[in-house]
Amino acid sequence: MSGNSMGLLFTVTSFGESHGPAIGCVVDGCPPGLELCAEDIQQDLDRRKPGTSRHVTQRREADEVEILSGVYEGRTTGTPIALLIRNTDQRSRDYGNIADTFRPGHADYSYWHKYGVRDPRGGGRSSARETAVRVAAGAIAKKWLTEKFGIVIRGHLTQLGEIEIPFTGWPHVAANPFFAADDAIVPRLEDYMDSVRKSLDSVGARLRVVAENVPVGWGEPVYDRLDADIAWAMMNINAVKGVEIGAGFASVAQRGSEHGDELTPEGFASNHAGGILGGISTGQTIEVGVAIKPTSSIAQPRRSIDKAGNALTMETHGRHDPCVGIRAVPVAEAMLALTLIDHALRHRAQNMDVAVGTPRIAGPARSI
Amino acid sequence: MSGNSMGLLFTVTSFGESHGPAIGCVVDGCPPGLELCAEDIQQDLDRRKPGTSRHVTQRREADEVEILSGVYEGRTTGTPIALLIRNTDQRSRDYGNIADTFRPGHADYSYWHKYGVRDPRGGGRSSARETAVRVAAGAIAKKWLTEKFGIVIRGHLTQLGEIEIPFTGWPHVAANPFFAADDAIVPRLEDYMDSVRKSLDSVGARLRVVAENVPVGWGEPVYDRLDADIAWAMMNINAVKGVEIGAGFASVAQRGSEHGDELTPEGFASNHAGGILGGISTGQTIEVGVAIKPTSSIAQPRRSIDKAGNALTMETHGRHDPCVGIRAVPVAEAMLALTLIDHALRHRAQNMDVAVGTPRIAGPARSI
Amino acid sequence: MSGNSMGLLFTVTSFGESHGPAIGCVVDGCPPGLELCAEDIQQDLDRRKPGTSRHVTQRREADEVEILSGVYEGRTTGTPIALLIRNTDQRSRDYGNIADTFRPGHADYSYWHKYGVRDPRGGGRSSARETAVRVAAGAIAKKWLTEKFGIVIRGHLTQLGEIEIPFTGWPHVAANPFFAADDAIVPRLEDYMDSVRKSLDSVGARLRVVAENVPVGWGEPVYDRLDADIAWAMMNINAVKGVEIGAGFASVAQRGSEHGDELTPEGFASNHAGGILGGISTGQTIEVGVAIKPTSSIAQPRRSIDKAGNALTMETHGRHDPCVGIRAVPVAEAMLALTLIDHALRHRAQNMDVAVGTPRIAGPARSI
Amino acid sequence: MSGNSMGLLFTVTSFGESHGPAIGCVVDGCPPGLELCAEDIQQDLDRRKPGTSRHVTQRREADEVEILSGVYEGRTTGTPIALLIRNTDQRSRDYGNIADTFRPGHADYSYWHKYGVRDPRGGGRSSARETAVRVAAGAIAKKWLTEKFGIVIRGHLTQLGEIEIPFTGWPHVAANPFFAADDAIVPRLEDYMDSVRKSLDSVGARLRVVAENVPVGWGEPVYDRLDADIAWAMMNINAVKGVEIGAGFASVAQRGSEHGDELTPEGFASNHAGGILGGISTGQTIEVGVAIKPTSSIAQPRRSIDKAGNALTMETHGRHDPCVGIRAVPVAEAMLALTLIDHALRHRAQNMDVAVGTPRIAGPARSI
Repeated sequence: MSGNSMGLLFTVTSFGESHGPAIGCVVDGCPPGLELCAEDIQQDLDRRKPGTSRHVTQRREADEVEILSGVYEGRTTGTPIALLIRNTDQRSRDYGNIADTFRPGHADYSYWHKYGVRDPRGGGRSSARETAVRVAAGAIAKKWLTEKFGIVIRGHLTQLGEIEIPFTGWPHVAANPFFAADDAIVPRLEDYMDSVRKSLDSVGARLRVVAENVPVGWGEPVYDRLDADIAWAMMNINAVKGVEIGAGFASVAQRGSEHGDELTPEGFASNHAGGILGGISTGQTIEVGVAIKPTSSIAQPRRSIDKAGNALTMETHGRHDPCVGIRAVPVAEAMLALTLIDHALRHRAQNMDVAVGTPRIAGPARSI
Repeated sequence: MSGNSMGLLFTVTSFGESHGPAIGCVVDGCPPGLELCAEDIQQDLDRRKPGTSRHVTQRREADEVEILSGVYEGRTTGTPIALLIRNTDQRSRDYGNIADTFRPGHADYSYWHKYGVRDPRGGGRSSARETAVRVAAGAIAKKWLTEKFGIVIRGHLTQLGEIEIPFTGWPHVAANPFFAADDAIVPRLEDYMDSVRKSLDSVGARLRVVAENVPVGWGEPVYDRLDADIAWAMMNINAVKGVEIGAGFASVAQRGSEHGDELTPEGFASNHAGGILGGISTGQTIEVGVAIKPTSSIAQPRRSIDKAGNALTMETHGRHDPCVGIRAVPVAEAMLALTLIDHALRHRAQNMDVAVGTPRIAGPARSI
Repeated sequence: MSGNSMGLLFTVTSFGESHGPAIGCVVDGCPPGLELCAEDIQQDLDRRKPGTSRHVTQRREADEVEILSGVYEGRTTGTPIALLIRNTDQRSRDYGNIADTFRPGHADYSYWHKYGVRDPRGGGRSSARETAVRVAAGAIAKKWLTEKFGIVIRGHLTQLGEIEIPFTGWPHVAANPFFAADDAIVPRLEDYMDSVRKSLDSVGARLRVVAENVPVGWGEPVYDRLDADIAWAMMNINAVKGVEIGAGFASVAQRGSEHGDELTPEGFASNHAGGILGGISTGQTIEVGVAIKPTSSIAQPRRSIDKAGNALTMETHGRHDPCVGIRAVPVAEAMLALTLIDHALRHRAQNMDVAVGTPRIAGPARSI
Repeated sequence: MSGNSMGLLFTVTSFGESHGPAIGCVVDGCPPGLELCAEDIQQDLDRRKPGTSRHVTQRREADEVEILSGVYEGRTTGTPIALLIRNTDQRSRDYGNIADTFRPGHADYSYWHKYGVRDPRGGGRSSARETAVRVAAGAIAKKWLTEKFGIVIRGHLTQLGEIEIPFTGWPHVAANPFFAADDAIVPRLEDYMDSVRKSLDSVGARLRVVAENVPVGWGEPVYDRLDADIAWAMMNINAVKGVEIGAGFASVAQRGSEHGDELTPEGFASNHAGGILGGISTGQTIEVGVAIKPTSSIAQPRRSIDKAGNALTMETHGRHDPCVGIRAVPVAEAMLALTLIDHALRHRAQNMDVAVGTPRIAGPARSI
């Protein structure tokens, strides 16, 4: 209820502040019997890790995960899996000057009014550092989904500020620091980011995340629709301001004769639905688009107030990502994985009695 | 867990099929002492009611609500409020021919695979008829929010197919069948809808819904962010394909120096955040944008398959809205109200100890 | 959260006051495909119905149930099943004199302080009339448990006031108005009840409810233990003051060498555990004992106060059960069924991956 | 859903195995502003700690707690409080011989069938070692309840095997290793325990736990009754087989004229209800009785089977409590505190609108 847990059957309960002793989570509901070791989790953590290129924050965190429970002789036991990541590089002195002021675009003002007290060091609980925990939990979800169903979850940046990034192929994504699915555009992105940094400013981004091979029938009909739970998951990522499924906002100007995906014995003829109809998966690829606002911490002088309501001017220095959208890619993948595994388990609970003869159909993966 | 309830502290549990005996819900968690009668609810139901103009479905439903419990001598008692709406105009013959086929764009295919059985009459549980229930429950939420906090929740259509609708003023909205905030454009919208109907097609829509006077401090920090819960609520409305908060997708191409709302002693200098920072309300107007796909039921021939997987061609006749987005306006208002009242009650539970001296600030309402 | 729902995966949301228009519930999470009609539910309702003998309340309620949704062509569809029972015999005049006073032993005082307002007619929401709803929902649960697993849930009275009732055989239970498993004692029980009524007093009761053929492995390990959820369910029945599992309070004076049930290839050698170890079912019969206090409404003069705190003397007339424990038997069965079906569905969600070779063992059913 | 969390608004999520690296929990929902340091928690942990007398297990655990998050400058911030207790004395060799067998009275058999895999070292997740976590979380709850409402929660042993222990006074409880409220009986208890140990056996126990100064109005009316949630909490403690509130099982043989607590302007005239009526607190002392079975691990030879279903004889050596009921006293206190704080926060969420003029009454504390 206090907003630090997600998932009904596969539940992640997160804890930790940016500059406290540690961050971590308890993953409850992971089915028993899954092979799991710290290295399985570390791989995804390293994709989100700060300090891997000059285009992201220079904070140095090992982000080393320790499994405290729930695994015995290399396999999950069905009991809670506690994950611990110690904070090692907290330069709290960077933040001392903002304890009594509210950084524009940040949660400082709203936190202060909600709690009446806050840990100002690095944004405390509102820091995007918390997303490491989700990536860790998401790695477990991904592994199970892949082993049980062959589900593949992956994402890439589709827009960086004003620059749209074409999709050339998945192998490109891991080969550059922008999660761009097109090698050719990388130099342009680098120049662009350099100029943004020099102007002491930041930019927004747009990303796409997909899940392939999701079985038909996952999701609920009225209030826990699969698309609603995905929207919820994405909007729970720091800095996200918009979410769309399939054709998304483009469907506003579409006609029904264009948007509605026809069915054929060979599969759906298109995927404007983005793999979900009536809140339930269709077996097509699930297509999610996410809009991320520019980083709020910038070194330009900005107007704000202090706790007493006095006007002031502040610049936010420190080691910030000039575009938080970049490192959000593995976070969005994790959130999609966590949403899907929860619905996978719900589906199990509900549907043992069902025997449907109709052959599943699939069809084109991409909505556009 | 089966997806027919929403809200943690103010919980709506919905039931009913389009062509069954009745639809309705149980509202649990409404604070005691609120003055309430059926008429309070009926007003909002009538705004969503079918058959009110030629541009919406011609199904004739009185949508008359009966309060079965939870109200004594004109006031809520704190016990569950059950609401019942009998279905009166179910022409099931209209749907007999689709029992063994899957209508493109509809939930038929995914429902079939999820449940192995479905009530095909009018889409059964997947029918947008269920949204009447939300409007009814939302009316209770709205009334309480208004009486306690002066909160005003309202919405309007911002785009109908290709036509963008300007915002001229709130009083316009109730004066035309399109929930358009501009009288002048109404004739154009009418011609447009007539042409859509004649072409046996349908169109999408975009709408905006806002909540004014929401206190600062509502929402959770990590996973039940207010914006995430709003996105979830909106995406749970039939046919919704995208949601954005504040600047939304426009923030992708913004710079941090532009997007981040500055604070001044007189209030925020802008509202790109849409009234929410770090998942918690700021006291500014909450701004939500919603994209709705074109109605899936159209009378044009479309390709599909039957349960055995055989190809076929089908036309969907019946009494359908040529643009489901229009009547979605009161539904979106209701979903926003239900989300807010839940967070209002959470806030109560959490914050009795807090005494924050800083004067609240507000600032400009609109994000753009 | 407001205490009108039970069950995580098979959720019953109850509504209604004793003297309002109706009581009822929404059952969400019933698996699709179960044959179900009103008559299936009516049978259990009739066992709990008032007015069936001179030893229970003489209120005349048909307790006729209407299924409003979730069933299509005689089978459940997986969508919410709404059940409605209209109140027909509300003599509110019986209760007019108690609107401003607090009946001893009743919830009047605590409700008044919780809600600040209450529906005094017949106890309003706190009336045991609400338990009809649980019996109705429980009938669905029972039917599914029986069809899927052959589970048999049944109960009987083991003590009425000072009189212990021996267990002679299950067929006896349906043959007398006391749910006594021994015909021979019935005349003595009748005389006893007559004398209690004549003395304008009431008595407590003890009952036993069991579930046979429950598979091994249901229940959670730490906080949602099957025995804890059963205790919760039982203690949620009006007037229940104690719950025990298996040997229960007798285990206090037992030695470990006596209490701990040995395992043999043929099954457990005893059942002091009552079918549950470590919160998880063992495959033995689940054994539950319940203590029920005497009816609070008695016609003797008793001291109380009014809302202003003034002393007064009151007698509670009306049509009350002289022993609420009797009609509690079908209610306790229903609560056990609702608890078990929820864990059955949880088990499904969790355990698809498990393949345990060990042959299940069972052993003696009774704990003592 | 997987049974490792308790509480809706004050939620404890527990993790850890007896012989894994650590146990711990995340406490989510603690109001901000509470002064808190590790020492506050350590005090209660030390009361439950093993190895403090010859009558409890000789396992040596420092049970030192580390606060990982949620506290800043000595006060809670409203964000999750993660507590970590490293396991230091795990002699896994003690348990190697039981990996393929099922100890009578233990969760081994049911765990194996539920999960298909288990951590056999010290009972893994089913070990009572987990209860240290609850004591730690409960210490936070206790502190808040005391500071806000002056609530006092305490418990004592009322029966050890066949020996009933009189209540002489609270100060006695801390002065002996049995949590006995009577000094004079201690030598007899010591002799008794010595003889139990010598006979290689174990005994059950009965305990009483109370909460004084609980305000009137906490609890829910139908399904989350305060007494039901307390029963659930107690039955979730390892080895508990029975729970009663107020007069409990004694109420079976009572008359209504005896059981029903009369109200007077000076307070209730008795407390057979145990402080709860209709599921809601009355302002009187909450009275809970708990029955605990004898320790299952005994060194006598007992019949069992192995995973293949073969008969065998086993003795359970190791360092076990000859009566688990003794150290259960602080655990039961913690569970009561956790239940109460959750309802305290629910009450806040629901009842801001209520203004009830009637003066609260209290009356006698003890039910008997």
